[in-house]
Amino acid sequence: MATSRSPEIRKDAVHNRWVIFSPARARRPSDFKSKTDASSTANTHTECPFCAGHEHECAPEIFRFPPESTLDWKVRVIQNLYPALSRDLEPLNAERGGGGQVTLRGSGFHDVVIESPAHPVHLADLSPPQIADVLLAYKKRIDQLRGFDSIKFVQVFKNHGATAGASMSHSHSQILALPVIPPTASARIQSMKEHFEQSGECAICQVKQEDLSIHESSHFRSIVPFAATFPFEIWIIPHHHSAHFHNIDPDMASDLGGVLKLMLEKMSLQLKNPPYNMVMHSAPLRTESTELPFSHWFIQIVPQLTVVGGFELGTGCYINPVLPEDAAKVLREVSIQD
Amino acid sequence: MATSRSPEIRKDAVHNRWVIFSPARARRPSDFKSKTDASSTANTHTECPFCAGHEHECAPEIFRFPPESTLDWKVRVIQNLYPALSRDLEPLNAERGGGGQVTLRGSGFHDVVIESPAHPVHLADLSPPQIADVLLAYKKRIDQLRGFDSIKFVQVFKNHGATAGASMSHSHSQILALPVIPPTASARIQSMKEHFEQSGECAICQVKQEDLSIHESSHFRSIVPFAATFPFEIWIIPHHHSAHFHNIDPDMASDLGGVLKLMLEKMSLQLKNPPYNMVMHSAPLRTESTELPFSHWFIQIVPQLTVVGGFELGTGCYINPVLPEDAAKVLREVSIQD
Repeated sequence: MATSRSPEIRKDAVHNRWVIFSPARARRPSDFKSKTDASSTANTHTECPFCAGHEHECAPEIFRFPPESTLDWKVRVIQNLYPALSRDLEPLNAERGGGGQVTLRGSGFHDVVIESPAHPVHLADLSPPQIADVLLAYKKRIDQLRGFDSIKFVQVFKNHGATAGASMSHSHSQILALPVIPPTASARIQSMKEHFEQSGECAICQVKQEDLSIHESSHFRSIVPFAATFPFEIWIIPHHHSAHFHNIDPDMASDLGGVLKLMLEKMSLQLKNPPYNMVMHSAPLRTESTELPFSHWFIQIVPQLTVVGGFELGTGCYINPVLPEDAAKVLREVSIQD
Repeated sequence: MATSRSPEIRKDAVHNRWVIFSPARARRPSDFKSKTDASSTANTHTECPFCAGHEHECAPEIFRFPPESTLDWKVRVIQNLYPALSRDLEPLNAERGGGGQVTLRGSGFHDVVIESPAHPVHLADLSPPQIADVLLAYKKRIDQLRGFDSIKFVQVFKNHGATAGASMSHSHSQILALPVIPPTASARIQSMKEHFEQSGECAICQVKQEDLSIHESSHFRSIVPFAATFPFEIWIIPHHHSAHFHNIDPDMASDLGGVLKLMLEKMSLQLKNPPYNMVMHSAPLRTESTELPFSHWFIQIVPQLTVVGGFELGTGCYINPVLPEDAAKVLREVSIQD
């Protein structure tokens, strides 16, 4: 199938949505490059409010690693100065209008994780233990947010490069805690539930094809998914079936730090340092224990290589010019110097 | 509600998905401008394969208006030179792999509608009767595509400006005919069906709020939707309840030509000629007559003013910095010189 050049339409049981693969529209997979180099804009300022010594220019801090550090902090979790949601958690009082319209107050949390005190250092530049610290900061913050009854879902994500949505070039991620379960998460849970009911298996545990594989570590498998929405999209999947990222332990975080670094380096080398988004796909917080058999967390990395147009907007169906087997082969074979 | 500055989370019965409104993150609605002027790249070439006299450089023509015209054609519908789907309509033979993976052959049609023979002329520059010709070309092509049993859904869309996905600057739209019903259409039909079953009414017929209204013509209402996914998103809705765009008649097309021109001009003037996507939302082709009571076609216009990042990618939930009432007021009050 990897050598086929005719279009295919695929779906998997994780997202259960059709993706069109049109390899004839593409260059050779090995020729794929980003049009915008994310590093070109990244170092235009050498100091910013996220840098060590500028802490007073930021919104209030939530915590830092190590807890008692001063200018030698490694990771800081702070409030977003321009939050999308209000931290005021009064009861939501859904307001219902005609025509099925519903309004809730926009309550929740919108936090920023500063991944390094130094401006020019990107996530992929950190050592595996330093990346593990960032991951453990996500975990600690999610554990705090789980304490609020009104928070139903936490989304951890990272935008790298201005065209991927990053408004600050200093390396950071964001954590949004929502009072509702968002549409893609609902749809994914529903799709994986239906698959489990039909087959008795978790759709993510079942992903085993060698031709989709990029890398295996002691705790994680990195793949290009069978029905990848975007060219060179990567999923990092824990071997151990688990619904929630926040169940990660320091040993897994340490392994994941190395895997994440390797995937970002492979992507950067092969695709010429593209802007990218990194998205944590974890189950809703107040998941019933009956939902655990079919929920399996994973990390999605999407390099920004294509433009989303009217077709995708209208249909929710994406056109991917690179077959996942071809993308996996290219990423598997890019070797990173130690 | 239009004066509120605190975040809100809204959904409607058409898409049934949460949108976060964070007006505090925005400039004043009247200050919104596009970062990239779509016209700046539009005229860099004065001749291209879509221009009159270059017809031989294009993929085969399907039809033209008027049918017997030569260099004086008004609209041409041609095959896409780089189609996303193959016109080979052999039986699809779904192939099912482990883990709920499904593969279909990528069969269908991918056509281009050249909206004018002249390179520098954009859709909004055409007269209302000329735009009506473009709309009637969509209708005629859909009527042809409906003849193929394997085609389940037709998506008409337009990308204006390179950052909105247009690879050719010469004004054109695209028509993709699919052998599957795409995810957003399925979800919309399902949501509108549930609303109809609960309320006995069509969710789109029920949209009546004056503060969301931009303009009324004899056949159409133009609004900013209550749970607009994007800032300054516009919906053009026929007054007459109808599931399919292709039921449009010449009188309605003529009225819609004027409305479309007015909306594009208002958007261009207020938002500084932004790149945009125009998307036709019509029901699947082989709709059962029982589905007709809750399906209502409309046109969505989305100016490209914001970047989609990891949050939207992960959650399917969008953050819109402009309240629909504020956007509607601004667009309603921009006046266009005749």
